[in-house]
Amino acid sequence: MTTLKNDRFLRALLREPVDTTPVWMMRQAGRYLPEYRETRAKAGDFLSLCKNNDFACEVTLQPLRRYDLDAAILFSDILTVPDALGLGLYFEAGEGPKFHKTIRTEQDVASLPNFNAKSDLDYVMNAVSTIRSALGGQVPLIGFSGSPWTLATYMVEGGSSKDFRYTKQMMYAQPEVLHALLDRLAIAVIDYLNAQIDAGAQAVQIFDSWGGALAHREYIEFSLNYMQKIVAGLKREKDGRKVPVILFTKGGGQWLEPMVATGADAFGLDWTTPLNVARQTVNGRAALQGNLDPATLYGTPASIEKATKAMLDDAYAHGEKTGYVANLGHGITQWVDPANPKVFIDTVHEYSAKYL
Amino acid sequence: MTTLKNDRFLRALLREPVDTTPVWMMRQAGRYLPEYRETRAKAGDFLSLCKNNDFACEVTLQPLRRYDLDAAILFSDILTVPDALGLGLYFEAGEGPKFHKTIRTEQDVASLPNFNAKSDLDYVMNAVSTIRSALGGQVPLIGFSGSPWTLATYMVEGGSSKDFRYTKQMMYAQPEVLHALLDRLAIAVIDYLNAQIDAGAQAVQIFDSWGGALAHREYIEFSLNYMQKIVAGLKREKDGRKVPVILFTKGGGQWLEPMVATGADAFGLDWTTPLNVARQTVNGRAALQGNLDPATLYGTPASIEKATKAMLDDAYAHGEKTGYVANLGHGITQWVDPANPKVFIDTVHEYSAKYL
Repeated sequence: MTTLKNDRFLRALLREPVDTTPVWMMRQAGRYLPEYRETRAKAGDFLSLCKNNDFACEVTLQPLRRYDLDAAILFSDILTVPDALGLGLYFEAGEGPKFHKTIRTEQDVASLPNFNAKSDLDYVMNAVSTIRSALGGQVPLIGFSGSPWTLATYMVEGGSSKDFRYTKQMMYAQPEVLHALLDRLAIAVIDYLNAQIDAGAQAVQIFDSWGGALAHREYIEFSLNYMQKIVAGLKREKDGRKVPVILFTKGGGQWLEPMVATGADAFGLDWTTPLNVARQTVNGRAALQGNLDPATLYGTPASIEKATKAMLDDAYAHGEKTGYVANLGHGITQWVDPANPKVFIDTVHEYSAKYL
Repeated sequence: MTTLKNDRFLRALLREPVDTTPVWMMRQAGRYLPEYRETRAKAGDFLSLCKNNDFACEVTLQPLRRYDLDAAILFSDILTVPDALGLGLYFEAGEGPKFHKTIRTEQDVASLPNFNAKSDLDYVMNAVSTIRSALGGQVPLIGFSGSPWTLATYMVEGGSSKDFRYTKQMMYAQPEVLHALLDRLAIAVIDYLNAQIDAGAQAVQIFDSWGGALAHREYIEFSLNYMQKIVAGLKREKDGRKVPVILFTKGGGQWLEPMVATGADAFGLDWTTPLNVARQTVNGRAALQGNLDPATLYGTPASIEKATKAMLDDAYAHGEKTGYVANLGHGITQWVDPANPKVFIDTVHEYSAKYL
């Protein structure tokens, strides 16, 4: 394996000293980049883009050519696992992801097929190793998965949802059915992320995109407990180097205290949580990642710089020296001017050095 | 004016002693009730239902006939003010509210017409006085308005939104235009709520449905500050009785500390915030209202009772004796079995007495 030339992302996650704050952007390989749209057009559709090694590698690397990013993230979809479980993922123009099958009963859960990440999602593992090799040690590669709760919402609803009607009906009226599904998913996600680590992922992030739709007790019972299981089941070291794990519950800023107990290395935050308050709560027990409102990038260079500096002031408000990765609080949107992320990223590197 | 027979809702909001916990449900007059669907069918469409005195009064009273509720809430829409400002509110089947006109520029804001609640929204005031009189002092009547920020999102987007793209573009790139709009709206909402109080509303609630989409700093600057202006401009007393004001920012559980500084009497919470933590934060300086996940009502009688009791245990965890109104954390959904709210409401009354 090539030596890693820039490891400040991994170091910050593990709360080791860094020279400046590492930064990446969720969904950094995305529609706001004309070169992404071009590759996607060549691939035909979104799923073909994910399933083709060369295209997936190409779009993963594109933002690194434009910006001084400290990490790359595997280009893939969070719904690969339910797709491999036979639900039949598809996308309709202008709409979110959909499944041909839904999971609504005990029988539906019981009839889910066995899952083996390396064989059932070999295209993901191929993409990971292709990208890792193409990176040549420039920056670390992040692997990822959806959280069991988040995957379950899509499987039960049959796609995206605003209110999670069927999933919550199941949760409140038949909690044992949902637990059975979440248990299956937790086991699958452990296998999936470990396979990504074997293939070359140097850190992993669990996207709990819909954990914030839960009430506080149900968040712990139906989302966090299964993420904790995953954290416990992951390979946390590979080739003599630690593989950090990040949990990101969108809308989860109020639940940092129980999150820390999972033993994950870092927690992602969305923009609703003041970073200085979150740092105080976590109190050195884990790293934090986030949390600029992606819509900040609709602003002017001056307003983006100002907001980024305010975020960094919060991140280091108590004299912290590490344990922080700058990011947006959610994925970058397709309407951002590609000139603007550079302002955010360069401000992070230039301004944060004074704290470190 | 008739004497109020049941004033425990007002008393709890003002942190005066109560015999049992008062309870109502956001959107309690709604599609989950067959009698509501019947009246709505008679009215023709949603806006005609709002604009007709008798129909609006009828649907307001319907849930009170079924359940032992401690408050009635005016049946209306949060978008009456933008509609009166000439934006042309309409509803398309199966979709959210829409406007014929949008507000995107300084000129758009400047060209908004003058607004006088009593004349421009006389149908609302007529509904308030009709309902108040029909209630005959059974329980207090709550008036309401959308918050300036929430109204602005609909006006800028031209309807509902998932990401508030145009409103946030305006906020980050042209904050002065958004401030001008919010200022106009704050003045209009003060006039609107005071007119409702004059017409008979005995408490008012400001629905900041989309405040939770903001970053913490922007929440204060673009939403909370304008709600504070409104609180300062409201008639807080009528006929020798205090008129409490409730602010409800969905997704605002992390911002209770700055909220308390507005001087509002009470704050609504959604289900993501643990009530015991919120009570500790507020520490007797204001009342709280909420916060059962509306999806809890999809459960069984036993699961609804259990969740309601857990919420009440949290509400009185520190020996509090008042300052709490039970409610859902958001509006009741159309899919709830009308038998289930009774379990929630009766459990609140029966179980909470032991704490009071």
